[in-house]
Amino acid sequence: MPELRQNLATREWVIIASERARRPNVYAEATDRTFTHERDEHDERCPFCVGNEELDLEVCRLPDDGPEWDTRVVRNKYPALAEVGPLIRTFNGVERFITGVGYHEVLVEHRLHNATLALMTDEEIRSVVEMYLRRGREISVDPRVEHLVFFKNHGERAGASLPHPHSQIIGLPIVPGDIRHRIEEARRFFDDTGRCVFCTMLDDELSRGERMIAENEHFAAFILYASSSPFHIWILPRAHRASFMHIDPSTLKYLAPLLRDVLFRLYTHLNDPDYNLILRSSPTKEPENGYFHWYLAIVPRLSRSAGLELGSGVWINPAIPEECAAFLRGE
Amino acid sequence: MPELRQNLATREWVIIASERARRPNVYAEATDRTFTHERDEHDERCPFCVGNEELDLEVCRLPDDGPEWDTRVVRNKYPALAEVGPLIRTFNGVERFITGVGYHEVLVEHRLHNATLALMTDEEIRSVVEMYLRRGREISVDPRVEHLVFFKNHGERAGASLPHPHSQIIGLPIVPGDIRHRIEEARRFFDDTGRCVFCTMLDDELSRGERMIAENEHFAAFILYASSSPFHIWILPRAHRASFMHIDPSTLKYLAPLLRDVLFRLYTHLNDPDYNLILRSSPTKEPENGYFHWYLAIVPRLSRSAGLELGSGVWINPAIPEECAAFLRGE
Repeated sequence: MPELRQNLATREWVIIASERARRPNVYAEATDRTFTHERDEHDERCPFCVGNEELDLEVCRLPDDGPEWDTRVVRNKYPALAEVGPLIRTFNGVERFITGVGYHEVLVEHRLHNATLALMTDEEIRSVVEMYLRRGREISVDPRVEHLVFFKNHGERAGASLPHPHSQIIGLPIVPGDIRHRIEEARRFFDDTGRCVFCTMLDDELSRGERMIAENEHFAAFILYASSSPFHIWILPRAHRASFMHIDPSTLKYLAPLLRDVLFRLYTHLNDPDYNLILRSSPTKEPENGYFHWYLAIVPRLSRSAGLELGSGVWINPAIPEECAAFLRGE
Repeated sequence: MPELRQNLATREWVIIASERARRPNVYAEATDRTFTHERDEHDERCPFCVGNEELDLEVCRLPDDGPEWDTRVVRNKYPALAEVGPLIRTFNGVERFITGVGYHEVLVEHRLHNATLALMTDEEIRSVVEMYLRRGREISVDPRVEHLVFFKNHGERAGASLPHPHSQIIGLPIVPGDIRHRIEEARRFFDDTGRCVFCTMLDDELSRGERMIAENEHFAAFILYASSSPFHIWILPRAHRASFMHIDPSTLKYLAPLLRDVLFRLYTHLNDPDYNLILRSSPTKEPENGYFHWYLAIVPRLSRSAGLELGSGVWINPAIPEECAAFLRGE
């Protein structure tokens, strides 16, 4: 019998389609390795490669002001949002719009064209997450920005158009409805129980263990009970905090190795699958609170969304989350 | 300057990325015509082809009980939901689940393997929408069913795995959160204004005209002001009604030609793009009301969702809706 499972935090339902279930290892075979592999260390046509830096687009680099950089943040050359301009709202019948002001930046994660997060060192990954934090804090100061999204599209199926390893940072002049709904659900749980729903989920996953992948002193990674797709993973900080921008920077040295561990398991067990990495955090102007909790989500693109997902928000997941977790643990 | 536009009904924001805007005709070139074209009329391995009918899976056919069928509804051989079984809810810490009972049916739209909705006759399309209505009404009677989703995945990028033209009907034992949010937004608009937000949008689009594609006595089709992707189309009935299941069947003869017209324009102007077709209707047990309004959505799969959409629900649309509408009107 198939099962409908509900994500306690978002209240979203997924169908775990046990009748169509596929063993976790089939997803390794399904991956077509055409994009991120066997590239050269340098591509002279790549805008993110050493030697092609457009310095007028550069925002910052690590190490600061060094002639050789490890990571860089640059403004997107074709930004979805414009950095300069006033925020103007216009409501005219059904036509409600806001000028598209905000930030659209690219974080170039590594000098080498053929590097990939899963195979970087802890130190290298740490400088990536440090850049997230630095730009997150800097952009948050802009009064026009209401919400920040940090994400990475790895591989073509995840929406990447350039293979050089990079993340994106978008500063929006609105809080999207989807985010409002999630916060509202978390607040409702808090009002009902007096607890953060994410802390509750984390405690429960830690005590059950069957969906855990890895953990350390400050972070824990598990496959979601109500995964919307195969190998859908959350990495939660153990300390309750609504905004990533408010974390103690010293904990970043615990995030990097855990992220590396999880991505390396996906890389080796699933043949470097395409995936999206998303950092979710409370809207920039909201104070710290007891109900929201920042986290990283990793969504491998191993199945395709279709009419049911578009039409109802219900996902069909043909993989059993507990089996996926055991597979990534190497059992 | 890019624009953020808000969908008045769903309150979702999209970024119309004018800086990255592409002329509508580029989408015709982007389509790879590998899937639905130049197929044979019959494929002996296709489970939906004449001669391969598994009669024990058949639910109904048109004409009724005829030896030769025009359209058939069959139970999905690998259903995401089981038709037989009790509805049992279990809440155990974070593990909240419901037995996966419900309906998962396939509507085979045509006898011929190489038929496609866009090229069918009005009569043929009418028998497809009549089947939606018939099964919708029959499934709604089951007390375990809370919500019905009718959809079609056309082409591989839209999630189709079999090329024989077909739709799917899913009867869910829950009302998904996504649907609840949309209804809530519509109700709020109604409480504020005394009007249905969909009727309001329709009136506005009809009077503006610039995003209209086609209309007749009972239905109208337009590109959404806040399209989440290029050529995102709604077909709205002019008569206010929350549930498709409550329509006057005589109006179906007006829906078929309009649907054909819209799909034919997409087919000819965009080279038979992959698309999802979704029929949205009020949950099965909710009475008729003044705020929700059933409709058809057509979402061509011409761009790919990525980290921003997953992480915030905000879509980046690189096509200007008004230009897309003019292009489909042949201007």
